[in-house]
Amino acid sequence: MITTVECLPCLLRQAIDTMQRFDVPLTDQQAVMQEIMYVLSTMDVRQSAPAMAQRIHRLIRVRVGDDDPYRAIKDESNALALELLPRLREGIHGAEDPLASAIRVAIAGNIIDYGARRQVEREDIDNLLTRSLAMSLDERTLDAFNRDISSAGTILYLADNAGEIAFDRLLIECLPREKVTLAVRGAPIINDATRVDAEVVGLEAMVRIIDNGTDIPGTLVERCTPVFQRHFSDSDVVIAKGQGNFETLAEAGRPIYHLFVAKCSIVADAIGCQVDTPVFQCRGPLQG
Amino acid sequence: MITTVECLPCLLRQAIDTMQRFDVPLTDQQAVMQEIMYVLSTMDVRQSAPAMAQRIHRLIRVRVGDDDPYRAIKDESNALALELLPRLREGIHGAEDPLASAIRVAIAGNIIDYGARRQVEREDIDNLLTRSLAMSLDERTLDAFNRDISSAGTILYLADNAGEIAFDRLLIECLPREKVTLAVRGAPIINDATRVDAEVVGLEAMVRIIDNGTDIPGTLVERCTPVFQRHFSDSDVVIAKGQGNFETLAEAGRPIYHLFVAKCSIVADAIGCQVDTPVFQCRGPLQG
Repeated sequence: MITTVECLPCLLRQAIDTMQRFDVPLTDQQAVMQEIMYVLSTMDVRQSAPAMAQRIHRLIRVRVGDDDPYRAIKDESNALALELLPRLREGIHGAEDPLASAIRVAIAGNIIDYGARRQVEREDIDNLLTRSLAMSLDERTLDAFNRDISSAGTILYLADNAGEIAFDRLLIECLPREKVTLAVRGAPIINDATRVDAEVVGLEAMVRIIDNGTDIPGTLVERCTPVFQRHFSDSDVVIAKGQGNFETLAEAGRPIYHLFVAKCSIVADAIGCQVDTPVFQCRGPLQG
Repeated sequence: MITTVECLPCLLRQAIDTMQRFDVPLTDQQAVMQEIMYVLSTMDVRQSAPAMAQRIHRLIRVRVGDDDPYRAIKDESNALALELLPRLREGIHGAEDPLASAIRVAIAGNIIDYGARRQVEREDIDNLLTRSLAMSLDERTLDAFNRDISSAGTILYLADNAGEIAFDRLLIECLPREKVTLAVRGAPIINDATRVDAEVVGLEAMVRIIDNGTDIPGTLVERCTPVFQRHFSDSDVVIAKGQGNFETLAEAGRPIYHLFVAKCSIVADAIGCQVDTPVFQCRGPLQG
């Protein structure tokens, strides 16, 4: 679990950006900021940023008066990503190592993160796709991934954001899909993918889908449903998309393949990379 | 008075920077951040950033266990600025319009602000001096300043930071100094100048010095001493250095000449300039 005081100003900044996005009047913004600071002042500050973001966005949703204010943005991201799929799928199939290519595409999809970015443009996605497709994946991690996937009886895939989830589909197409269970968030939080997003990008017809029962932009296992917890502990392989899942699961006590774009200096420092770098890493105790 | 929710993340960021500067242990940083957020959650958020900064830095000083943690930094800034004085004075005396030149130097000195900057290097000061000396001052403001200074019976000069106050000396040398009263902060706050800084740069022998009685990095007149309040309302001309004084006095109900460097987008937007731009402006109802 990554947690630091440095996340606090950033979380407040994100809260303001969100309220401005949804045209919350200034006096309401002031009231929400006071509520947020009060809630954060009473929380255990050793909690991760996603745990704090959950509380912050609950307060904002109440003020916006919408349980799912990012719905339209998520629809847009899904549509944009789906538009890109045929060309990307063709690229993957034509690649020397299709699985490695699909991993790169899935990582690139993680740019579509409205928690970390104010706006995601078609151009941003194109740029990151280009960079990601040229990204050299760590050979040892790639070999281990290949081996683990081949021998696995069950694979749990933790989705992150809407739009991105269409790119995840391309990676899942390269996995033994009868073994895959896809987990989405249990309720709307920022632009994170929920069940409807998995359906829209056609994943429901391909794999088993569960939700984690929470509205946290990450995965705090102990707060998830018993079904999710069972999958998390029993699956032979866990693939986690996104920085929020990395922040909350970095020391989850089991091996996890993390695929994401490092979006802030705190996480980039923890990994030893630059901000905006694609990350493909296995973390946690080695399987026995 | 400039006040906005946008200041909140920035104030938290500054608090963290300050605690890191003074090596506050991480667990103490977490405790202070919770105290800060609690205090801010109970404050009237329509207050200015300097009013919030006062409360924040009081909490930090208690944790650092030092009433004046910036003392060594202030000493260093004073020494660095004093070293530059002879060359700058020569430049001012040789200039076509010495008063305009001294105004530019005094504005450049405002770069020495440890509230807005983590570190101020000799190079930063040199760069800003070069830019400031080339800065074209608004002709109408300069004419009005010249006129007001000539006809004034009393001039109140509000200092801002240590180090900077040595550059203020050069401007004060160009004013009818028997009419000048210099006001400093009443108690240590960040690297703001207090009486000792005025003494160190030799201003005590030149002008009358008062303090405003507060530890606010700006000037909230209603919280200042009666003596300060009398000077503020009765002086014919008020010259205010620094962004903190601008933020707290922008609508103080009397004309004020503001000299500072705009250090954030909120203030820059209010003025209609870019961040890091030198500002020379008269604000408030016309005298008369």
